[in-house]
Amino acid sequence: GIPMKQQKSAIAWSEFKLNSDGLIPVIVQDYRNGEVLMLAYMNEEAFDKTVKTGRMTYWSRSRQELWTKGETSGHFQYVKRLSIDCDNDTLLAYVVQVGAACHTGNRSCFYRDLMKKEYDAIDPMNTLQHLYEN
Amino acid sequence: GIPMKQQKSAIAWSEFKLNSDGLIPVIVQDYRNGEVLMLAYMNEEAFDKTVKTGRMTYWSRSRQELWTKGETSGHFQYVKRLSIDCDNDTLLAYVVQVGAACHTGNRSCFYRDLMKKEYDAIDPMNTLQHLYEN
Repeated sequence: GIPMKQQKSAIAWSEFKLNSDGLIPVIVQDYRNGEVLMLAYMNEEAFDKTVKTGRMTYWSRSRQELWTKGETSGHFQYVKRLSIDCDNDTLLAYVVQVGAACHTGNRSCFYRDLMKKEYDAIDPMNTLQHLYEN
Repeated sequence: GIPMKQQKSAIAWSEFKLNSDGLIPVIVQDYRNGEVLMLAYMNEEAFDKTVKTGRMTYWSRSRQELWTKGETSGHFQYVKRLSIDCDNDTLLAYVVQVGAACHTGNRSCFYRDLMKKEYDAIDPMNTLQHLYEN
């Protein structure tokens, strides 16, 4: 694994605004290319473990248990950066994703489109063209 | 605004798995550079309006009302692509963000770090170095 020193969070768990289930949603993003990989949830124990170990740890709502991502699959997520939003109710994690984030084998859980415009959102050429035209 | 034809969703609302509040969380990502801008929530009406109009529309949990982002601020979000995750309980929207997504004036709501590793996650040079070294 990638070595990571123990760290503390700049804002304490007690200041977070929790959802109806007492959890905080965490958006997980690949730090290398910005791809959004999944959304998961943390309770205080999961948050503490994530900050202490540098490995993303969640609260599994379906299994009702602490869940260090990768523990059974080997597909660990190493924290590179952890941010919080303006109203303290959502976390954003930049991670090094080992293997696939999704249990289906897809790298991201968001592999199905509901609707799409004429061009691909993550094609750099289109991005450059858009910037040039605007 | 950017013209957008009316579209239909590939998967119906009735197939979505809603949270304890009867809503579905939506991760909003800048389609130009992959920056995660915010997390918001939709009910069925918000989802339908988003798909029909091409403008991101949410259910405001604090105000308990339908909320087309940008209606008062002018900071509209035009949908480029809408994806759903493996277990149908989270949406990911790629948008053209007009102005700032955050009410604080920051482009993204995630402008505060809780912890950070030694190098910047979105520095392309670091990304290239990481890929080269691994």
